[in-house]
Amino acid sequence: MLVHRREVEIEWGDCDAAGIVFYPRYFAMFDASTAYLFEKALGMKKIAWTKAYGIVGIPMVDTGARFILPSRYGDVIVIESRVGDLRRSSFDVQHRVFKGDELAIEARETRVWAEKHPDDPDRIRGKTIPEEVVAALSAG
Amino acid sequence: MLVHRREVEIEWGDCDAAGIVFYPRYFAMFDASTAYLFEKALGMKKIAWTKAYGIVGIPMVDTGARFILPSRYGDVIVIESRVGDLRRSSFDVQHRVFKGDELAIEARETRVWAEKHPDDPDRIRGKTIPEEVVAALSAG
Amino acid sequence: MLVHRREVEIEWGDCDAAGIVFYPRYFAMFDASTAYLFEKALGMKKIAWTKAYGIVGIPMVDTGARFILPSRYGDVIVIESRVGDLRRSSFDVQHRVFKGDELAIEARETRVWAEKHPDDPDRIRGKTIPEEVVAALSAG
Amino acid sequence: MLVHRREVEIEWGDCDAAGIVFYPRYFAMFDASTAYLFEKALGMKKIAWTKAYGIVGIPMVDTGARFILPSRYGDVIVIESRVGDLRRSSFDVQHRVFKGDELAIEARETRVWAEKHPDDPDRIRGKTIPEEVVAALSAG
Repeated sequence: MLVHRREVEIEWGDCDAAGIVFYPRYFAMFDASTAYLFEKALGMKKIAWTKAYGIVGIPMVDTGARFILPSRYGDVIVIESRVGDLRRSSFDVQHRVFKGDELAIEARETRVWAEKHPDDPDRIRGKTIPEEVVAALSAG
Repeated sequence: MLVHRREVEIEWGDCDAAGIVFYPRYFAMFDASTAYLFEKALGMKKIAWTKAYGIVGIPMVDTGARFILPSRYGDVIVIESRVGDLRRSSFDVQHRVFKGDELAIEARETRVWAEKHPDDPDRIRGKTIPEEVVAALSAG
Repeated sequence: MLVHRREVEIEWGDCDAAGIVFYPRYFAMFDASTAYLFEKALGMKKIAWTKAYGIVGIPMVDTGARFILPSRYGDVIVIESRVGDLRRSSFDVQHRVFKGDELAIEARETRVWAEKHPDDPDRIRGKTIPEEVVAALSAG
Repeated sequence: MLVHRREVEIEWGDCDAAGIVFYPRYFAMFDASTAYLFEKALGMKKIAWTKAYGIVGIPMVDTGARFILPSRYGDVIVIESRVGDLRRSSFDVQHRVFKGDELAIEARETRVWAEKHPDDPDRIRGKTIPEEVVAALSAG
């Protein structure tokens, strides 16, 4: 599978009163990493590929994370992201966070390739993930 | 002028590694307080009154805050908000934060009563604030 | 088990460009709900009971959430929280979010009752959860 | 004065339901930019220079911003930061945000070079800014 890696420097405002990253911040970082992974695969920013494929986005339906090592202000972490299982209209993403050589966090997401429901613009429904998107994410 | 007061309990995730509120969080609290002030004045939630008056919102054009006393996890602060100067299509909001009897923060906002530009849906422009909105905010 | 329920009004700043709550914000709400659950059980704010029991906190080691229904600006949700399995020095928390009668989110946490490591103040280790804390969380 | 410039890509989670950056997020970006400016001046990360100079940090006492152009998901902005007036124990920072050639935001900060109060560890007080820090920030 295609892998996206990026460095993130932990900022003061990412940390809580214990001096370590407030864990909801990691989920915001993972959300951005998933967008960057798709940008790398599809050669377009998310705002462009959602339009190109006629979807409203890739909303989260299930996510989880296991926190192994804390990170502090000034630490530089590496977030490594790849798509896992690809189904008809949903897929999994895996994120691994490293501090140097050590695994600090393992996270997983299940998202839907979603379009507006034709009968109700307030609702969404899964849409078949195009072959070329599957191929681009599976490259590597 | 109409005054809106609310208590806010400082949560763990509002604080930074120094154990005090990370100041950008206060601006999020002030944004919500302005919405609650208008809800009190107009008897509708923001999502309803923006629709009722045909505006896209009340975007911020200028804001500032003076921080006098810090607040910590578990502190309960009171945010007191009122509209200041009301002009044709823009207005000022004042927020004062109290810890007990002591003034902890003074903040000010300038916002625009904004509608979509008729010639370009990506742009906005000021719209005359309706008399009844001026009256409702000035009551009290 | 003791249950803590609270209403949360979704604020403008909780939502993303799709107009629904940006899911990392829910994790911040759940973190606060866990603190409120313990406050209800122990009759003290977290800042007091961590001191009273000689711990540094209850850091998260594993969390996950399943998102069933989205919430929008102005929605009022109910977060219902209770402790699940209680082990020697770690425990699970369950959160359920309701929109009216409908289940909107199910989340789970595994946290540690953690003290500073006696040999290294930068590290933490699990500490036995006191009987009275187990009893207070199990009441209800 | 020494200038620090950095590019920031606007992420999905930075934006609100109007599809533009939720302005409190800019203050978090400015806080980080000030830290990067000092890191550039002093050749150390903030966590190191606060320790080296015996201070608790550079807490904010007054800040403000004027928002001229909005930014959206996927936009890349440039934040340009420099110290303005340098007084005995306090100083001003100026941030300018550019979208391409256009000025999008002007912001200012007043911060204190602060140490723990010798009589009360819960309070802080201004400390004279060292000559070498003044010189490093004034270079360029």
